[in-house]
Amino acid sequence: MAKSKFEYVKGFEMSDSCLPNTWLVLRLDGRGFHRFAMAHNFAKPNDILALNLMNKAASAVMQEFQDIFIAYGQSDEFSFIFKRSTNLFGRRASKLLSTVVSLFSASYVFYWSQFMKTPLLYPPAFDSRIVLYPSAKNLRDYLSWRQADCHINNLYNTCFWSLVESGLKNEEAQKRLNGTESSQKNEILFNEFGINYNNEPEQFKKGSVLLWENYHEKIQSNDGSSVGDSGNDPGKANTESAVGDSVMESTREGFTFRKRKRVVVSHVDIIGDSFWDNNNLLD
Amino acid sequence: MAKSKFEYVKGFEMSDSCLPNTWLVLRLDGRGFHRFAMAHNFAKPNDILALNLMNKAASAVMQEFQDIFIAYGQSDEFSFIFKRSTNLFGRRASKLLSTVVSLFSASYVFYWSQFMKTPLLYPPAFDSRIVLYPSAKNLRDYLSWRQADCHINNLYNTCFWSLVESGLKNEEAQKRLNGTESSQKNEILFNEFGINYNNEPEQFKKGSVLLWENYHEKIQSNDGSSVGDSGNDPGKANTESAVGDSVMESTREGFTFRKRKRVVVSHVDIIGDSFWDNNNLLD
Amino acid sequence: MAKSKFEYVKGFEMSDSCLPNTWLVLRLDGRGFHRFAMAHNFAKPNDILALNLMNKAASAVMQEFQDIFIAYGQSDEFSFIFKRSTNLFGRRASKLLSTVVSLFSASYVFYWSQFMKTPLLYPPAFDSRIVLYPSAKNLRDYLSWRQADCHINNLYNTCFWSLVESGLKNEEAQKRLNGTESSQKNEILFNEFGINYNNEPEQFKKGSVLLWENYHEKIQSNDGSSVGDSGNDPGKANTESAVGDSVMESTREGFTFRKRKRVVVSHVDIIGDSFWDNNNLLD
Amino acid sequence: MAKSKFEYVKGFEMSDSCLPNTWLVLRLDGRGFHRFAMAHNFAKPNDILALNLMNKAASAVMQEFQDIFIAYGQSDEFSFIFKRSTNLFGRRASKLLSTVVSLFSASYVFYWSQFMKTPLLYPPAFDSRIVLYPSAKNLRDYLSWRQADCHINNLYNTCFWSLVESGLKNEEAQKRLNGTESSQKNEILFNEFGINYNNEPEQFKKGSVLLWENYHEKIQSNDGSSVGDSGNDPGKANTESAVGDSVMESTREGFTFRKRKRVVVSHVDIIGDSFWDNNNLLD
Repeated sequence: MAKSKFEYVKGFEMSDSCLPNTWLVLRLDGRGFHRFAMAHNFAKPNDILALNLMNKAASAVMQEFQDIFIAYGQSDEFSFIFKRSTNLFGRRASKLLSTVVSLFSASYVFYWSQFMKTPLLYPPAFDSRIVLYPSAKNLRDYLSWRQADCHINNLYNTCFWSLVESGLKNEEAQKRLNGTESSQKNEILFNEFGINYNNEPEQFKKGSVLLWENYHEKIQSNDGSSVGDSGNDPGKANTESAVGDSVMESTREGFTFRKRKRVVVSHVDIIGDSFWDNNNLLD
Repeated sequence: MAKSKFEYVKGFEMSDSCLPNTWLVLRLDGRGFHRFAMAHNFAKPNDILALNLMNKAASAVMQEFQDIFIAYGQSDEFSFIFKRSTNLFGRRASKLLSTVVSLFSASYVFYWSQFMKTPLLYPPAFDSRIVLYPSAKNLRDYLSWRQADCHINNLYNTCFWSLVESGLKNEEAQKRLNGTESSQKNEILFNEFGINYNNEPEQFKKGSVLLWENYHEKIQSNDGSSVGDSGNDPGKANTESAVGDSVMESTREGFTFRKRKRVVVSHVDIIGDSFWDNNNLLD
Repeated sequence: MAKSKFEYVKGFEMSDSCLPNTWLVLRLDGRGFHRFAMAHNFAKPNDILALNLMNKAASAVMQEFQDIFIAYGQSDEFSFIFKRSTNLFGRRASKLLSTVVSLFSASYVFYWSQFMKTPLLYPPAFDSRIVLYPSAKNLRDYLSWRQADCHINNLYNTCFWSLVESGLKNEEAQKRLNGTESSQKNEILFNEFGINYNNEPEQFKKGSVLLWENYHEKIQSNDGSSVGDSGNDPGKANTESAVGDSVMESTREGFTFRKRKRVVVSHVDIIGDSFWDNNNLLD
Repeated sequence: MAKSKFEYVKGFEMSDSCLPNTWLVLRLDGRGFHRFAMAHNFAKPNDILALNLMNKAASAVMQEFQDIFIAYGQSDEFSFIFKRSTNLFGRRASKLLSTVVSLFSASYVFYWSQFMKTPLLYPPAFDSRIVLYPSAKNLRDYLSWRQADCHINNLYNTCFWSLVESGLKNEEAQKRLNGTESSQKNEILFNEFGINYNNEPEQFKKGSVLLWENYHEKIQSNDGSSVGDSGNDPGKANTESAVGDSVMESTREGFTFRKRKRVVVSHVDIIGDSFWDNNNLLD
C-alpha cells in the first residue's frame, strides 16, 4: 500500500499556465440547449426567466472570482473576462476553466427553482474554453463579436417565431428568411406583425453586461436595530443580483455603513466607445 | 453590426487536442469541501450518503460519455478514464474537461435531495484536470496511486475521529497520530476502540469502482404488458446506478428482452493483478 | 542598470516539456533544398556524397546525444528517435529541437569539404519538429512511413531522371509518370533503360539507418606503442562513421582494449519484423 | 510498401502556433561556449572578432526573415524580435525556432574563416527558445533585461581578467570581486589598472543592436558602367553587414538608383526612451 511507488504518475501532469499580461476570456456555452429549451418549454424567441437564471449563475461566479471585471451573456452562453494581471490559480488554464464552469453549472441547478416555473427534468451541461487577448482592441473586438452575434440572432429569431406563430411551418419560416438583410427583417416585423424591432426589450437585443458597482450599505442604525438584506427578485433583472465582500465600515448621520461592492446587470451597447469611455475598465 | 469585422478574434483560440493513443484520465476534486462538509454536517470520517451521491453524479457522466470505461472515486474526488482510442470532441482538452466537470456538478446538485437529508445550502464547485498515460502500466499505477491514497487517508481519518470522539481535541488527536505507521494506527483502533480495521466497510477502505456491465432487460411479456423500470435507491450502493443505451432486442420464452449496459459500482481492489485479469479493460 | 526590475520578463517563458514515457521523434528537413541541390550540382536522382554528408552530420548528433538509439535518413531529411525514458534537457521540446537542429546544421557545414567536391556557396538551413509516440507500434509505423516514402520517391525519381536523360523535357517526363503504378515504373526502367530496380543501391532504395554498435578498440600493445585511429572515409558509407565514449578497458593477449561504442550506418529494411527481432531496441 | 497505412502517424503532430498579436522573441544561446571559447583562444574578456562573427550570422538570419525588425546580441547569445503581426510559418513555434537557429548555426560555421584567425576545431551548437510578449512595455523590458545583463557581465569580466592578468589566480580574482557593487568594480579598474570603464568600447558595454536601414544604392551610371558592391569587412563592425531586397529603381543626375534596405549594427543604449523615440519600431 506504499503510495510512494505510484506517485511518479504525478509527473505526467503537464503545465498549462496562460501567458501573463493578457486578458483571459472564459466563455461557456450550453450543451444541447436546443433540446433542453424544448424539454422545459422555454418561451420563444427569448425566455426572460431562463436568461435571468443565466445572469444569476454568472453573478455567483463573479462573486467567487472577483478578478472577473466584466461578464457578458446572451442566449445560453456567458463570457467572463479576468483582469490582465490576474494570478488566480497561477493562471492555470484547466483549473480556471473547470472551476468556473463547475460553479456556474451547480449554480444554474441550485437557483433553478427560484427563477423557473417548471421543474428541472435533468441536469444541464456547459462546455468552456479560454482565449487570451493581448491588446485592449482585441478584447473589445471579442466582446463586440459576441454582442453583434446577439443582435443578429435575436433579429432573426424574432422574425422566425413571428412567422411561425402566424401559421408558417418551421421550414417555411426558415425559407422565407433565407438570405434576407437586416433591413428586410425589420420590414417583415413592422409590416406583417406591427413590431418595431427598436422597441423590443434591450435585454433581448443587447444581451446582459455584468459589472461591479461600489455602494454603501446601511447595516444598522446606531440604536442597534439591524437593517434587512434585500433578497433576490427574479423579476428585477437590472438591479444588483449579488453582493460582494464588505470592505470597510463608516458611520454617518446616526447610521453605520459598510462599503461594499455588488454585481449589477445592464443591457447596454458595448460595441461603441461610450461604454468604455464611461467605465474605466481597460487599465 | 457587421459581425464579420470582429470575427478575426476567433483566431486567438489555440488548439489543445490530446496526444492520440494515450489513456486520458480526467480527475475532478471538490473545491473547499472541508468547509462544504462541515456546513452540511457530513458524517465523520465518511458520509455514506455523500459518497453515494458522488457515485450517482459519476454514473450520470459515464452514461453521457460511454468512452469512459472505468471511473474511480473516493472522498470528494473522481477519476474518469477514457478509452485510449476515444475521439470524443476531437480529444480537445478544454472541451472534455469542461463538459465532464459541468455535468458532474449539475448532477451533484440535481440529485442532492435524492441522497442527502439536509437541504443544500449553496452550490459546490469542482475543479478538474486531464492527464495522459501512454502505457497500461502507467495507467494502472495512476489508479493504484489513488486507491492507496484512499486507504491511507481512511485509516488516518478513522483513527483521528475515534480519538476525537473519545474526548481528544483535534490538535491532540493530530499530535497523537503524527509519525505513526499503519500498523500503529491499526493497533490504536483495535486496542483503544475495539475496531478491527479490516472489518470496516469496503467502500470506505477501497473507494468506488464504476464499470459497465451488459445485461438483458425484460421489457415486456408478449401479451403486451410493460415491465417496470427500477428507480434509484440511495441505500443500494452496489447495484446498478444508471441505465445505458439499449442496443438490440430479442425474444425468449414469451418475453421480449433488450440488450443493455449499465454502470455498476463496486469496492474492490484495483492495485493487484486479479481485477485486471478478470476484466478485459486494457486492450 | 538594475537587472532585477526587468527580470520579471522571464516569467513569460512557457513550459513545453514532453509527455514522459513516450518515444520522442525529432525530424529535421532541408529548407529550400531543391534550390540548394541545383546550386551545388547534386547528382540526380541521388548524390551519394551529399547523402553521406547527411549521415556524417547525423552521426555527430548521435555522438553528442547518446539517448538517441536509432536515426533514419533519406534525401534531405533525418529522424532521430530518443529513448522513451530520456530525460535530456528535462524533455523540454524547444531545447531538444533547437540543440539538435543546430548541431546538425553546423556539422553539415563543418564537414562539407570532407565530402563534397564543390565549395559550399551559402549556408543551408533545416527545420525540425518533435512528435511523440506512445506505443512501439506507433513508433515502428512512423519509421515505416518514412522508409516507404523513401522507396516511393526513389522509384519515381529514378524513372524521372532516366526519362529526362533520354531526351524528355521535365514536364514530359512528369506527364509520362503521372498516375503510374509501381509495377509500371519498374517496367519502364527495365524495358526502356535496361535497369533492374532491384539492383539499384540499397542506400538509395532504403535510406540510411544509424545504430549504436559496441566494439573493443585495441588501444595499445603492452610494449607501449599506440595503435592508429582510423579516420573518416567519405566513400565508405557502411562502416562506422563516428566513435563514442570509451567505457572500460581490458587486457588480452598482450594488448589493452577499450570497450567503446560507435555509430554504424546500414541500409536495411526497417518495415518488416526481422530488423526489430534482431535488434533489441524497443524495451 | 503502401505508404497510406502508415500515414496516420502524422496525426500525432501537435499544433504549436503562437498567440497572435504578440511580439515573438526568439533567443539563441551558445551551448558549452565556455569550452568552445577556450578551445579557440578567444580574447578575454571580449573577442571582437568572435562578436562580429555573431553579428554576421545574425545579419544572415535577418536577411532571410525580414519580419525580424530588431535583433540584439551580446556574448554568445542573440535575440531576434519578430513583428507583432508576423505570420511567418503560420507562427508555428517549432518551425520558427528550428529554422532560425539552424540558419544561424550554419552561418556561424560558414563565415567563421572570414572573421577568425584560428581554424574551427569542431562544430558549435546553439539552443533557442521563443517567448511571447503582449505589450510594448514587456518587450522593452525584455531588451532592457538583456542589455543590463550585458553591462553587468562585462563590468565583472573586465575586472576579473584585469585581476587575472595582474597575477591573481582565477579563484582569487573571483573571491576579490565577490559581493562588490558596480561602483567598487569601477574603482578597482581605475585605481589598480588605470582603466576608466566609461571609455571601454561601446560594443562591449552595450552589445550589438541590429536594425533595418533604407538606402539608395547607385547601381550604374547611365553610360552603362557598373558600380562595385562593397564586400564584408570584419573589422568594420558598425557599418552595414548585409544587404536586403531591392525594392524599386530610380534615376537621378545621370545615375540609376535602387531603393534597398540593409541591416546596420550599432552599440547604443536601448534601455532609455530616446532610442525608442527616435526609431518608430513599436507600432
